[in-house]
Formats: sequence, structure tokens, C-alpha cells
Amino acid sequence: MAARVQQAYSDLLHRVREAGVLASCGSALGWDESTYMPRNGSAWRGEQMGLLARLGHEMATDPKVGDLLAVVESSSLLADPVSDAAVNVREIRRNYDRAVKLPATLVGALAREATLAQGVWRDAKKASDFALFRPNLERLVALLREKADAIGHGGCRYDALLDEYEPAATTAEITHVFAALRAELVPLLASIAASGKSPNREIVQRDYPVDRQKLFGEAAASAIGFDFDAGRLDESAHPFCSGFGPGDCRITTRYAANHFNQAFFGILHEAGHALYEQGLPAEHAATPRGTYCSLGIHESQSRLWENQVGRCRPFWEHFFPRAKQTFPQALRGVSLDEWMFAINDVQPSFIRVEADEVTYNLHIILRFELEQAIISGDLAVADVPGAWDDKFSHLLGLKVPSDAMGCLQDIHWSFGGMGYFATYTLGNLYAAQFMETARQEMPGLEDDFRAGHFARLKGWLNTKIHAPGQVHRAGELCQHVTGKPLAHAPLMRYLRDKLSPLYGV
Amino acid sequence: MAARVQQAYSDLLHRVREAGVLASCGSALGWDESTYMPRNGSAWRGEQMGLLARLGHEMATDPKVGDLLAVVESSSLLADPVSDAAVNVREIRRNYDRAVKLPATLVGALAREATLAQGVWRDAKKASDFALFRPNLERLVALLREKADAIGHGGCRYDALLDEYEPAATTAEITHVFAALRAELVPLLASIAASGKSPNREIVQRDYPVDRQKLFGEAAASAIGFDFDAGRLDESAHPFCSGFGPGDCRITTRYAANHFNQAFFGILHEAGHALYEQGLPAEHAATPRGTYCSLGIHESQSRLWENQVGRCRPFWEHFFPRAKQTFPQALRGVSLDEWMFAINDVQPSFIRVEADEVTYNLHIILRFELEQAIISGDLAVADVPGAWDDKFSHLLGLKVPSDAMGCLQDIHWSFGGMGYFATYTLGNLYAAQFMETARQEMPGLEDDFRAGHFARLKGWLNTKIHAPGQVHRAGELCQHVTGKPLAHAPLMRYLRDKLSPLYGV
Repeated sequence: MAARVQQAYSDLLHRVREAGVLASCGSALGWDESTYMPRNGSAWRGEQMGLLARLGHEMATDPKVGDLLAVVESSSLLADPVSDAAVNVREIRRNYDRAVKLPATLVGALAREATLAQGVWRDAKKASDFALFRPNLERLVALLREKADAIGHGGCRYDALLDEYEPAATTAEITHVFAALRAELVPLLASIAASGKSPNREIVQRDYPVDRQKLFGEAAASAIGFDFDAGRLDESAHPFCSGFGPGDCRITTRYAANHFNQAFFGILHEAGHALYEQGLPAEHAATPRGTYCSLGIHESQSRLWENQVGRCRPFWEHFFPRAKQTFPQALRGVSLDEWMFAINDVQPSFIRVEADEVTYNLHIILRFELEQAIISGDLAVADVPGAWDDKFSHLLGLKVPSDAMGCLQDIHWSFGGMGYFATYTLGNLYAAQFMETARQEMPGLEDDFRAGHFARLKGWLNTKIHAPGQVHRAGELCQHVTGKPLAHAPLMRYLRDKLSPLYGV
Repeated sequence: MAARVQQAYSDLLHRVREAGVLASCGSALGWDESTYMPRNGSAWRGEQMGLLARLGHEMATDPKVGDLLAVVESSSLLADPVSDAAVNVREIRRNYDRAVKLPATLVGALAREATLAQGVWRDAKKASDFALFRPNLERLVALLREKADAIGHGGCRYDALLDEYEPAATTAEITHVFAALRAELVPLLASIAASGKSPNREIVQRDYPVDRQKLFGEAAASAIGFDFDAGRLDESAHPFCSGFGPGDCRITTRYAANHFNQAFFGILHEAGHALYEQGLPAEHAATPRGTYCSLGIHESQSRLWENQVGRCRPFWEHFFPRAKQTFPQALRGVSLDEWMFAINDVQPSFIRVEADEVTYNLHIILRFELEQAIISGDLAVADVPGAWDDKFSHLLGLKVPSDAMGCLQDIHWSFGGMGYFATYTLGNLYAAQFMETARQEMPGLEDDFRAGHFARLKGWLNTKIHAPGQVHRAGELCQHVTGKPLAHAPLMRYLRDKLSPLYGV
């Protein structure tokens, strides 16, 4: 009996691992597509990706997986809920159920509509005309509702969509914490605007030669612990991190010759993601036990290094003298104080990916609220631009000048990714809460940063966040690591501590 | 009935095409492994490649392929033997039969032994000690004999091995043409040695800055027609060309700062392979009709551009002034005559991949003869070094100083690639015979080269060699294009025409 269960578990893991290895082939091809693929290669790459997706879907929905799950679930193998076996079986069950609940016709329709809609979205954004994209978004929303119903939910369809990116998170919980955050962010932003203070923004917009940015960015990534023997840094139009498997995690950035922030903080961000991937337990590769917890937790690791570390003063006490050596002309006569203010500039702007640490979360809250209304049917797709602009004006105090600068700016909806945006602000919240705990548990951490040492923090994250893989769901992990459920207070404390001295608020 | 056959043919092609798409995923991962993969990624890459190989083998040996073949083969679909359908069915049958004849245990044993042997070979080469590699080579030879017997042959096991790389070629035929070639090469080499003449070799060994070599090599590849929108040029330890599919063919080279020839002629060589891949009919991608004919024909395309074109005087009448602009210091005061002699230097040397156009073929004939003796059992593996050195001294007049410079220099045997080497000299022979015909059919071709125009030659090769895919076997293709069976005379005429003026022989 025990042997039969062991064999079933072993077979199950073997199947899941193979599906993971196959998926990682797709990751590698996707990386190539974004970095080095010649332009005429895209049609064939589509054939390759399509085949891998189909084979992967076949593996994921093979009834044999269901049979094996049934054998192991009725056994004592899962007595300890945080054992490797219990974690793996719990998540394999979750993924299997989600996969088999979705009819192949719906999966196909969503994939086709997403491919189509992305092309139309690009054109609509270029023309800054939401009306062009409207029919596609309407079809996508209809399909997403179908998808939510197929997966199942307790009355709130949006829950089923969120669950894909942030397992077990609910609209109600997120709404609760976002509302508290919003209630404090809006007045903070108003007081910053009223302060009359602003940094010399031109400092970061000087001539930063791209080859020197590369060297400087690589040095910083290396300093925080990105292992270049187990990864690479390349260029792509849209920066990303892709972990193929143990020993191979690729990150990308894009360089602007006249803007320091874009590439540098982008590199820290993607390197933060990569430290998570490089820190996952290799012996559990391609099984849930060795897979990241949720997109929100993944984002917490990128935001932590990009912002909590990369925009703090002790970090720059180490790196600013090095930056001056690397960019002597741009930084001639610039003081550390001026630099810190310039890279922590807070100012409402239209584009999410260019937003600062305060306003960024308002961009997300706007999308989170609109998406719920769209999926519930409270907001007709045709009314999205108006609703966007109203909400934007209300939250950020700016009048949106065009659809391109407003509701057409992000790619996510065009690939059917509703439910995704929330994970960005969840990342900011988790990052602040984790970092607050890290500072408490490791006195003198900022002295480490001043000396250019990041190994203690990286080691703490490796142990607390990375090594557990999917042992805990995101909310439980937060409780486990920080002793408290997720809250908005740590992020607000972090923002106020940093911004008060700069803006005198 | 006709509809049933059509359906079967359509199903068959669909299956073969999918297997081809899957194999091309492996090609893309293989390219990445050789170019950009971080060092710690190799274990996971092994998992990915192993899985793709297994899935590919399952597709190739699926009994359903045999069933579909049986349906279409008994139909009138194949009435015209050079129709797309007939060509596809013929080659799908050949590949299916070869695949199913090999027991999975033998395939696995060969793959494992090859992986093991490559590691041992590297160490043995480093230590220059054949004895270290001997046990592995003995096991590989035993497995290759088993493989040849499983595939089947008419008494000559080596035929079955050759057939993998050069379908339908036989040991007897190749022996015949190689013997004729050898009989003329050896005295030609002797007369060159006796001429007392030699170029100023130091010219090509000056300082050629790598960044300039890149620009110059890319310009030359582009000039002969390599489409950079449908391919890339990167660096790797061992140069290669890999066609993933329509619109995406990658080539690599390696640069030596103090040797012009290595990268430049390497680029022309790989670009020649790539022109073949880029010239295959895209509508037949991943089916035999859209696949290269044989390795010998593939090699003919690389050798044709590398040597027949890239080492001819009209080519350099165009490119030498440009080379002087690009490398003003290295080429100061160098005349075109001196340059032509330096890049056409003939001199016996130990390493095949560094050999000139005359001695190269003697290196191949040596391996071709040794491989036959090893496979037939006439030569014990233990006696390989002695036999190698004897033969080398006989053919090239040099005493081999070490196993590393002799029988351990090439990787091929360590991956079980016996039968492969012959295709290199077949490539030289086909290249000379094709080019002789091209010159006859296109008067003034050399004036094109003088003007830097290569489109007429490329177009001719596209039509005559590339577009047919596998319509003809290599020997038939040669007959079809040149009106004659493969012979040694065109290569000898080419070599004598070029070398006589240089060496006064």
C-alpha cells in the first residue's frame, strides 16, 4: 500500500517535472524572441511556441495525473501539511483542477483573441484611439467571464481571475488593504505637492553613456548577489526576468542614454526577481516545492531591491562615489543629497511604468477598481476611457490628455491579463513589510549597505522567502515571516520616513 | 479512396512537421548553449535537450506513422517520383524505417556512451594520451557495429553509418573517387613542396582588431547574400550554422586578433551553409521536400563560398581595397598578389581544421580509411594511434608529435560520428563540380565578383541546389545540375588552375 502510494507520488512528480522542463524550453525560446531573434523568425517562433504550449497542455490535463492525485490524496503521505509531498500534491491538484476545468475550446478562443487583440492594441495605442480596441476588449472580457465561471468562484468572478496570479487572494482582502493605502497615499501626495519643494530632476537626465551604464548596472547586480555564472543580463524592448531552471536565469533591461533611472533601477528590479529564482531550491526544480509562491511575492523581491534598498541613502553612500567615477561629467559637483532627492522624486505623471513610489500605487488602485467594474459588468467596456480619466483626475489630480497616455498605455488587458495589476502593489506592500522585519531582525543592516555588503540581507531572503517555494501561500508566508498579516502600514511608514525629510512634510 | 489517401498524407505531413518544429526547438536551445548560456545552465539544458529528444523519438517512431505510410504508399499519389508527395513519402519512409529499426536500448546506450566519451575525450586530448580514451572508443565502436547491423547493410557495415550523413552513398563509390583524388593530390603536394616557393605567411598573422574583423566579416556575409533579417552572426568556441526554420538561421564564428583567416573564412563558410538554409522552400519547412539534401551537399555550399569564391582573385579585387581601409596598419604596403598567395598558402600541417585546400582532403582520406578499418575490425582500437601516425607520415610527410596533434584532435568519434568525415571532402568535390558548371552557364561570373555582385551565383544556387530540397539524392542532384556523376577532376582542375601560377608547378 505504502509502496503503491510512493510509486504514484513518484510518477506524479515525474510528470509534473517533465511538464516544467518543457515549459522552460518555452521560456528559453521566449527570452530569445525578446533579445536576439532576427525579425523574420517570428512566424516560425510562433509555430514552436504553439507546439510547446499544446504539448504542455496535454501533459497538464492528462487524466493519468488525476488518477495519480487520487491515489496519493487518499493516503497518509500528506499528514504533515508543510511536507514537500503535501505542498506538491496540494499545488498539483490546484493546477490540474484549473487546467481541466477550462474547456479546450475556451483556452483556444482566449489564445486566439489575445494574439489578435495584442496587434489591435498596438495599433490603437499608436493611433491613441480606444474605439479601435473596444471590440477586442469586449470579446476578451466576455471570454474572461466565461473563464472565471469555468474555474468557479463564490459569487465574485474577479476572484477567479486574481487567483491565477495570486493564489487564494480575494478581491475583498485586497480591496481592504488597498483602501487603507489609498486613504493615506492621497493626502501624502497632496502634502508633497503643497510643499513647494522639488529636486533638480535634470541631474538624472544628463548624458549617461550606455556602455558605462552597462558596467555600472552589472556591478550593482553583482554586488547585491546576482550570479552571472547562473544568469545573464541582456537588452530588450520591455525588461523582464525569466528563470529557465536551476543555474540559468536571464534578466534584461533597456538603456536610455539621457536617463540614468530607467536602466539602473530596472536592473535592480529584475535582479531582485532573479535572486528569487536563483534562490529557489534546485532539488525541487519544476515542482511546486521549488517554484515561486505568487506574483505578488515575486514582485516584492524586485521592489525590495529596486526601492527599499536601491533608493535608500546607505546604498548610495557606497555607490555614489563609484557613480561619480563612472559618470564624471554628469555628476560633477552633484552632492549625495541632491542625488538622493533626484532619484526619489515624487510627482504625478501619466505612465505607470515611469511613476514614482507614491503615485505608482495609485495607478494600480485605479486599474484594480476598473477591472472589477468591467468584469462585474458595472462598467461597460465602451465607458472605460471616461471612467479611467475621471478616476485618474480624482486620484492623481491630472487630466489625461489622450487614450495612449491613459487607458491604452498597458499591454495587460490585450493578453487577457485582468487580475495581474494588483500583484504590483501587493509586491510593494510585501516588500515594505518584509524589509521592516529584516531591519528589526538584523541590526546594523544599513551599515552593511554603506560598506557595499548585501549578503546578509540576501541570505535572509534566501532563507525566509526563497527556499520555501510554495510551502506557504502568500498571505501565510507574510504571517510566517513578519508575524503579521499583510497591512498597508509598513509601506506608509517607509514612504513617510524617506519622503518627510526630502519634502519637509 | 482518393480522399482517404489525401487525408492520410495530410496527417502524415502534419506529424512530420510537428516533429520538425519540435526538433527546431532543440536547435534553438543548442545554439543558445553554444553562444549565450551561462556556465551553470548546462545541467538544466541537458534536461531540456533530453526531454525534447525523447518526445521527438516518440513522434518519429509512432506506429501511426507506419500505418499512414502504408496507406499512401499503396496509392497512386506517388506516381510522379519527383512530386512533392513522392519525395516526402520516400524520405519519411527512410527516416521511419531507420528510427524503428534501432532498439530504444541501443539508442539510449549510444547517447549515454557518447556523453561520457566526450568528457573523456576532452581530458584525453588535454593529456594527449589516447590510452585514456581507448576504452570509451572501444565501447562506442561496438555500439556502432550494433547500430549498423540493426539498420542493415549489404555486407559492409560502414555503408550503414555513411548512410546517416550521406543517404544512399556507399563506401565503394566514395573509395573510388577518393582514390582518384588521392592519386593526384599527393604528387601535387610534392611538387608544391619542391617548388621552393612560399608566401609571406606573416601577412595574415598581423594585428587584425576583432571589432573590425566583425564589421568586415558581416559586410562580406551580407554581400554574398546572407540575410541578417533572417539570421544572426554570433561567436562560439566551435563555429557552426544552425537553421531553426524559415526566417531564422544562425551562424557563429570565433575571432583571433592575430589571424585574419580564422574568422573571415569561417564566416564565409558558415554563411555558405546559411544561404542553403535560407534558400530552402519555406512552404515545405520541416518536411523532406524543404530539407537539405545531404551533409555532403550542405558542405558543398559552405566550401563553395569559403574557397571557390572567397579565395579567388576576382573576389579580392573587390574586397582587398576595402580590407586595406579596414585594416590600414596590417595591410600597409601589401599587394594583392602577396595577399592572394598568403590566403592560398599550401603547407602540410597536423590539424585538419587549420589545413589548406590541398592537404585538407588528405586529412579526410586518412580518417575515411581508418574508420573503415576500425568498423570492419581490421584495425583494433588500441592500434589507432600507430596507424594514424603511419598514414599521416605517408600522406602528408610529417611525423605526428602527439596524440593531441594526431588521432585525438577531432571530437567526431567521441560522439559516435563515424561516417561523418567523408562528407567534408564530398563537399569540396561537389563544390568544385557545381562551380565549374556555374562558370560555364554564367559567362562573366568573375566580373560580377570584381564588382562585388554575388546575386547571380546565389540565385543560380538557390534554383539549382537549394530549392529542390530532397527531391534528389546527392548523386542524382550532381548529375542533374552538372550533367555528370561526381568526379575528382573538377576539384583537381580548380586546384591546379589556382596553385600553378602561385607555385610555378
